[in-house]
Amino acid sequence: MTKILEKTDRTRLRRLHERGAFDRDTIEAILDAQPMCSVGYVIDGKPYVTPTFQWREGDHVYWHGSSASRAIRQSRGQEVCLTVSILDGFVMARSGLHHSANTRSVMLFGRAEPVPDDQKEARLDAFIDGLWPGRSAMLRPTNAQELKATTILSMEITEGSAKVRTGGPIDDEEDYALPIWAGVLPVTRGVGVPAPDPRNLPGVEAPDHITGFRWPD
Amino acid sequence: MTKILEKTDRTRLRRLHERGAFDRDTIEAILDAQPMCSVGYVIDGKPYVTPTFQWREGDHVYWHGSSASRAIRQSRGQEVCLTVSILDGFVMARSGLHHSANTRSVMLFGRAEPVPDDQKEARLDAFIDGLWPGRSAMLRPTNAQELKATTILSMEITEGSAKVRTGGPIDDEEDYALPIWAGVLPVTRGVGVPAPDPRNLPGVEAPDHITGFRWPD
Repeated sequence: MTKILEKTDRTRLRRLHERGAFDRDTIEAILDAQPMCSVGYVIDGKPYVTPTFQWREGDHVYWHGSSASRAIRQSRGQEVCLTVSILDGFVMARSGLHHSANTRSVMLFGRAEPVPDDQKEARLDAFIDGLWPGRSAMLRPTNAQELKATTILSMEITEGSAKVRTGGPIDDEEDYALPIWAGVLPVTRGVGVPAPDPRNLPGVEAPDHITGFRWPD
Repeated sequence: MTKILEKTDRTRLRRLHERGAFDRDTIEAILDAQPMCSVGYVIDGKPYVTPTFQWREGDHVYWHGSSASRAIRQSRGQEVCLTVSILDGFVMARSGLHHSANTRSVMLFGRAEPVPDDQKEARLDAFIDGLWPGRSAMLRPTNAQELKATTILSMEITEGSAKVRTGGPIDDEEDYALPIWAGVLPVTRGVGVPAPDPRNLPGVEAPDHITGFRWPD
């Protein structure tokens, strides 16, 4: 059964509400397709936004950093807003303000709770393996000192929404008579040729999770 | 002469400070290479982050939206934090926590000031022409009603910093002896084939700013 998040005063879309989605399937697909995120938090009443990576396991999103970092220290146990956004295309219209962008974004609200020490390793392995299937088992295991110096924050996906725009430009009716090129310029994400570390041992080849990496659709 | 932003308590990097940059050239190059941004603001003491587009003219960054939108109404005249981030590569190490990402990011702090009505059209044209050189002159001109319904917010670039990571993984010395593939998987941004609006008039061809679009390096 599709889970639907309850609309709240923070997540109800005031405008263009037909672009809003509250079903977990839509929200999770966007989170899973875009590891980069922005975490917003408040220090002394002022806003801060830190770009970082997020990953999802079940009902939670996670992000991590040095336990000493300001972003981690100041958002730990506090209210945060986490957003991800994927640009799929530039939407070119016949007038300036009807230009738009095809984007998929998610905005989540909640309290950033630290992951207990005994669960950190499993969470970090899931982060690595989510992007690079099988990689965590190939690595030198994470040690206790590294885990201690790392804080993982988590937020349960309970309050949030997705916003999705697709399709071509929507112009004022009379503007369709103008000889102006309109349409969509799709935006793509790719990867280049892997650059091996010069200190790799002889004969060590790039694994499938590197050579076969594809951005999720 | 290179302009350097003064470090403040908000922008001084506590960790890995060698990755921080305060010179305007570095900051401006990143802003100019990435139109997508995240604007953080505070409502009733709680953090909100809205993904939107930004553009720069001289000493100011700008972003815009419907005057009725919550993000615009609630950040107008208020303290905001605006960030942009570009992912250049995944940095694959020999242990999990030495994995990293080559990124270029900018974090700016300031007050979001509304652009006066009589300057809105010039600012919007600059936004369009910044991404699509010459396009604003090809469009149906923006009308007074559209300008009234649109708020442009601006922030002077006075407090902020850039953060740049480049290069390969940095592993613990003893881990270089392990037969693990390490290196960088470069991340690229591209565009697909332009999709013309089915309602384009016959004979209207995609202009050079569409067919020749390239992401800035």
